[in-house]
Amino acid sequence: MSELRQDPLTGRWTIIGSERAGRPNEFVEEAVRLSAGSCPFCAGNEHETPDPVAAYPKKGPWQVRVVPNKYPAVALVNGSNGSPSPKLPSHVKQPGWGMHEVIIESPRHVVSISDLTDEEAALVFRAYRDRLAALRNVDGLRYVQIFKNVGPAAGASMEHAHSQLIALNQIPEAIEQEIRCFNDAHEQHGLPLLEKIVQDELTVGHRIVAETERYVAFCPWASRFAYEVCLAPRKRQASFESVKDAELGEIAGIVRDVIGRIERALGVPAYNFFLHTQPFDSTRCDHYHWHIEIFPRVTKTAGFEWSTGCFINPVPPEAAAETLRSAASA
Amino acid sequence: MSELRQDPLTGRWTIIGSERAGRPNEFVEEAVRLSAGSCPFCAGNEHETPDPVAAYPKKGPWQVRVVPNKYPAVALVNGSNGSPSPKLPSHVKQPGWGMHEVIIESPRHVVSISDLTDEEAALVFRAYRDRLAALRNVDGLRYVQIFKNVGPAAGASMEHAHSQLIALNQIPEAIEQEIRCFNDAHEQHGLPLLEKIVQDELTVGHRIVAETERYVAFCPWASRFAYEVCLAPRKRQASFESVKDAELGEIAGIVRDVIGRIERALGVPAYNFFLHTQPFDSTRCDHYHWHIEIFPRVTKTAGFEWSTGCFINPVPPEAAAETLRSAASA
Repeated sequence: MSELRQDPLTGRWTIIGSERAGRPNEFVEEAVRLSAGSCPFCAGNEHETPDPVAAYPKKGPWQVRVVPNKYPAVALVNGSNGSPSPKLPSHVKQPGWGMHEVIIESPRHVVSISDLTDEEAALVFRAYRDRLAALRNVDGLRYVQIFKNVGPAAGASMEHAHSQLIALNQIPEAIEQEIRCFNDAHEQHGLPLLEKIVQDELTVGHRIVAETERYVAFCPWASRFAYEVCLAPRKRQASFESVKDAELGEIAGIVRDVIGRIERALGVPAYNFFLHTQPFDSTRCDHYHWHIEIFPRVTKTAGFEWSTGCFINPVPPEAAAETLRSAASA
Repeated sequence: MSELRQDPLTGRWTIIGSERAGRPNEFVEEAVRLSAGSCPFCAGNEHETPDPVAAYPKKGPWQVRVVPNKYPAVALVNGSNGSPSPKLPSHVKQPGWGMHEVIIESPRHVVSISDLTDEEAALVFRAYRDRLAALRNVDGLRYVQIFKNVGPAAGASMEHAHSQLIALNQIPEAIEQEIRCFNDAHEQHGLPLLEKIVQDELTVGHRIVAETERYVAFCPWASRFAYEVCLAPRKRQASFESVKDAELGEIAGIVRDVIGRIERALGVPAYNFFLHTQPFDSTRCDHYHWHIEIFPRVTKTAGFEWSTGCFINPVPPEAAAETLRSAASA
């Protein structure tokens, strides 16, 4: 029997429907890489990307490199971020104002975070933190979304391991939704919401995937996607910029551990990854708590999800967590 | 240069980013149908599906047949739709209470709405209307979502042309969002929102795809998906149950026209289709206006969309509408 479960972090409902897992599927999908030729993200091809805005380590050959996206979704246009008034109230628009960068995660042609060296992986998270800290000072920017698409089914158009960063002059709907939930929990119950969720998950135990001294990875109660994993600090930390140098390796380690488990358990699927952090104009968002979501693309989003906003997840998070716990590295 | 556009029907923002269309893509994806053997939806195999709840025409061999889904996402469990109180406030749940049905659209093994006969297509929309009217009387049901997944990239697990219906005891988030916009437009401007949108689109003209006496199909101003099409009655009609017999053929005709254009223009892509209609407890929703959304699955939903709720659509709806207008049947 299925259950409707409400995500405490967003208020969204998910149908957790284990019976759906047994339905027949007439189809299989395969991805083929067309061009295995020259990759613009590989060492030696630096001239094929715009000049870097950052590179790590600071001295010697780069291991992680941040460049402007050649095909930006948004750009710093005319230095303006104003909203021209529309001709019709049904046609409200703004310039696509912001910044779009690519974080190239290795000079070698590797694909997944699990293929990086320990040092490269820690430098990726250092780049995230440093770019957030730098962009906080750009006038007009309010939020920076960092995300990763690995594999074509996850929306990747390039194979070489990379993340992306889109900086905006508005706070996205999904972040606003979380801010409301963080603020409601504080006002109504005096609770730091995600700290409480992490504590509850540690108490119950059966949705935990991995833990380290400072961080916990678990399959969320109302996971929208099969094998979705949320990773958060045990103690509330509003913005990812607050992460200290000494903590970057621990974050990289638990993220790689989780992704390694997903790849061993599910046959190296495509996956997405994103970081939610406190918006720059933080007065309304003091109760925020940064977190990372990782989800393999093993189920399809279909008409019901697109029409209702309610997801059907055939794999209960308790079963997903058990599978991922069993898939520790040898 | 890209634009951020706000959807008047939901309040959601989309990045309309035409520069993104030029980016390279290293991948191609292909779907393969594994089992072309016995199809449970074909005439002659009726014993492989549960007993029908409706069949059309009323006399003679069936052309359209409605059966309970063998792998339901929700079910009428114990006649109960109550909410047990959770052990932890972070673990709120309800039983997955409701109904899940399949509308088999032809006795022949065809795939798309465009493959149906005129009579079959009109009977599909009759089945939608009649099931909505019947389910309105089931105690506890508040909303019925009708949707279609065509092709594996759109989440279909079966090839044979079919729609699905999921009836729920709650009003989904996406419908609540639209109700707020309909009510706000009425309270603030005295406007029937979607009637005004349709009028504005007819005035501007360049996002119109097709029109008939009663219905207009257009690419929405802030389309989330490339080549997305919205179809609505010119005059406000709150619920799809209000559609008269004489109007069913006209609806089937314009839907098939639009899908035919999408298939000719884009090489028979996978697509989704859904019907949004007034919830059954309509006191709060008197300003609702039913509409159908059709969207081919030609772009991938990736990390940015999942993390922010904001979509990046590389094809401006003006260009999409022009392409679809040019793809009329020969």
